[in-house]
Amino acid sequence: MLITLTTDFGPQSPYVAVMKGVILSLHGDARIVDITHGIAPQDVRSGAIVLEDVAPRFPADTLHVAVVDPGVGTDRGLIYTRLGRQQFLAPDNGLLSRLALRTPPREIIRLTNPEFWLQPVSATFHGRDILAPVAARLSAGLDPRRLGPPQEKLVRLDWPQPVVHPHGIDGHVLAIDAFGNVVTNVTADMLPDGGQRVRVACEGQEATAHVRTYGDAAAGTLVSLVGSTDRLELAVVGGSAAARLATQVDRAVTIRWAQ
Amino acid sequence: MLITLTTDFGPQSPYVAVMKGVILSLHGDARIVDITHGIAPQDVRSGAIVLEDVAPRFPADTLHVAVVDPGVGTDRGLIYTRLGRQQFLAPDNGLLSRLALRTPPREIIRLTNPEFWLQPVSATFHGRDILAPVAARLSAGLDPRRLGPPQEKLVRLDWPQPVVHPHGIDGHVLAIDAFGNVVTNVTADMLPDGGQRVRVACEGQEATAHVRTYGDAAAGTLVSLVGSTDRLELAVVGGSAAARLATQVDRAVTIRWAQ
Amino acid sequence: MLITLTTDFGPQSPYVAVMKGVILSLHGDARIVDITHGIAPQDVRSGAIVLEDVAPRFPADTLHVAVVDPGVGTDRGLIYTRLGRQQFLAPDNGLLSRLALRTPPREIIRLTNPEFWLQPVSATFHGRDILAPVAARLSAGLDPRRLGPPQEKLVRLDWPQPVVHPHGIDGHVLAIDAFGNVVTNVTADMLPDGGQRVRVACEGQEATAHVRTYGDAAAGTLVSLVGSTDRLELAVVGGSAAARLATQVDRAVTIRWAQ
Repeated sequence: MLITLTTDFGPQSPYVAVMKGVILSLHGDARIVDITHGIAPQDVRSGAIVLEDVAPRFPADTLHVAVVDPGVGTDRGLIYTRLGRQQFLAPDNGLLSRLALRTPPREIIRLTNPEFWLQPVSATFHGRDILAPVAARLSAGLDPRRLGPPQEKLVRLDWPQPVVHPHGIDGHVLAIDAFGNVVTNVTADMLPDGGQRVRVACEGQEATAHVRTYGDAAAGTLVSLVGSTDRLELAVVGGSAAARLATQVDRAVTIRWAQ
Repeated sequence: MLITLTTDFGPQSPYVAVMKGVILSLHGDARIVDITHGIAPQDVRSGAIVLEDVAPRFPADTLHVAVVDPGVGTDRGLIYTRLGRQQFLAPDNGLLSRLALRTPPREIIRLTNPEFWLQPVSATFHGRDILAPVAARLSAGLDPRRLGPPQEKLVRLDWPQPVVHPHGIDGHVLAIDAFGNVVTNVTADMLPDGGQRVRVACEGQEATAHVRTYGDAAAGTLVSLVGSTDRLELAVVGGSAAARLATQVDRAVTIRWAQ
Repeated sequence: MLITLTTDFGPQSPYVAVMKGVILSLHGDARIVDITHGIAPQDVRSGAIVLEDVAPRFPADTLHVAVVDPGVGTDRGLIYTRLGRQQFLAPDNGLLSRLALRTPPREIIRLTNPEFWLQPVSATFHGRDILAPVAARLSAGLDPRRLGPPQEKLVRLDWPQPVVHPHGIDGHVLAIDAFGNVVTNVTADMLPDGGQRVRVACEGQEATAHVRTYGDAAAGTLVSLVGSTDRLELAVVGGSAAARLATQVDRAVTIRWAQ
């Protein structure tokens, strides 16, 4: 069983290696893949979007361990759950709530059984002391029902929802990727004709054209396109749309049907 | 068979993990090693230099998947090829052209057979939809000839070439490494006496001494030396030569034989 | 046998992949885990702290290869040693000296036998030419005594030591983590009552409260707490204490027993 790690510990943080050391100490054959450790510190919403985009691409039964945990050491819960074909260990703080919008969780278990944790448990690093040893044991075959009692629901976060009206859609910036592409919360299936005839604007600037791929317009052009996660994006060919627009997450994006 | 990944997706980009998820979903035993995901966005030339320096260090038959692909979704080709003892999957945009300067490609195949791709293929992420599934299948034993028709040549990029004359060499900055060392396109075999008697200058500043290793001069000294890739470098002991010289890739570097 | 890598090569440096390629070329089944490549360039002291915190978390007999090596190519030695249950390959420049404060080294061997090195050995990249091939061979079963002669002692670095007096402790900033938490050289066992009644100050600012975990105070509050490595820390809830205090490694931290 594969284990993935997604955290806000920062690129190259030794805390990530500490979790790997704990996992490998308890299950020497564990196979561990990093999803990212570059989630902005304590940004549960960004973590939720990354997990939504990436986790379903992994083999069935992969165990995804996610640690974006501003409430570590308080009474927020830690949970095991199954969503789609994947398994998860995470704080119950909304980190799985975008995945849960797509597919209802099956089997939610609250981690309460200290038998499978490192002792003593620190107040500030449950990734090391609880999630890593539990992941190691699950990957070695432990039945998740031994981790604690079942729980009915996951904590959910709210996201601004796009509003579709006769002349277009009022959407929002969902995320900004490493290329500076501005990813919106508007998906391809909301666009007529796959989006050939839309005009997209953000921060008072309108995209010059709606294209199929970045290379379809001249360098420096602000374009809109449907990106690889099926979301409408704003991009500057060979540049950064986020920098050009000086925008950020949750800012408004306006889509109008072209005449 | 080992698979490596080299991209410009950015450190900690979740897109890298998406490719790993796709590969592992199709070939659960695949072994994947990251070369780097820190190539400057769309900088095909930097990617070509990294592949030249790193790929030959891997075991024979390693499959190197490289994605620096400003032309994704346009009519640029994607290819499989063998260079030296290594195998490659990459866009045919010059990314392999420094390796090809050293050793002629054997067996170039253009990827045209959609049977081995994810469907539908996005217009913007061929790394995920074409290269990753093809890599998984090759690592599981697929014959590369099934990927598409043979092709005669690879696209090549041009680099400024050093000019050797009676008094020295006129070279250029090839790359700047993470320590701020300024790596030139002049190699050790162009230097008389292994370089003991050269004077090296860039941006109007001349190195104080030509040394064997960084620790051979006092902290803060601008020195020249032959680095670990056999290229002439400018370095500041305990500091950054790139910052001191305020230079960048392709700027002139002057080598003169000392009297 | 697991191999870990800890370097100052920089996130995403291709030099790391070069070391992996060399290891895997000599021992195809080697399993390699990154601890970090984000040690500040040539900062031996930071590397020593990371190794102290992370290495003991790995399975017994793990081989930790550490390269923070400002003296590469000079007459500083390279050594193999065992500390606690772990094995190490590193320059003998103090990089292991915090671990050695906790547990005396058993079996120190100076690497002098070129039989196990790549040839020719560069003057600037012993990680690639000496440590990587030696690591590969050790992981494949080579007896470390074949690497060279025994050596009596490791080079040690000095750190400022906390001074305990009747009214409190005069300590120092030991490190700053990726969240901006200011980690001190004062450990939990030096604090009365586990620290419930201390007042902690740095750069003229005093923490508002001593808490058990970050979430125990309101966002923006400067707090002190015992962190996950059992060291006293200063933190800003939801922010960066390092930025708030404008402090850095080795600056004074004052602990006073509260009345």
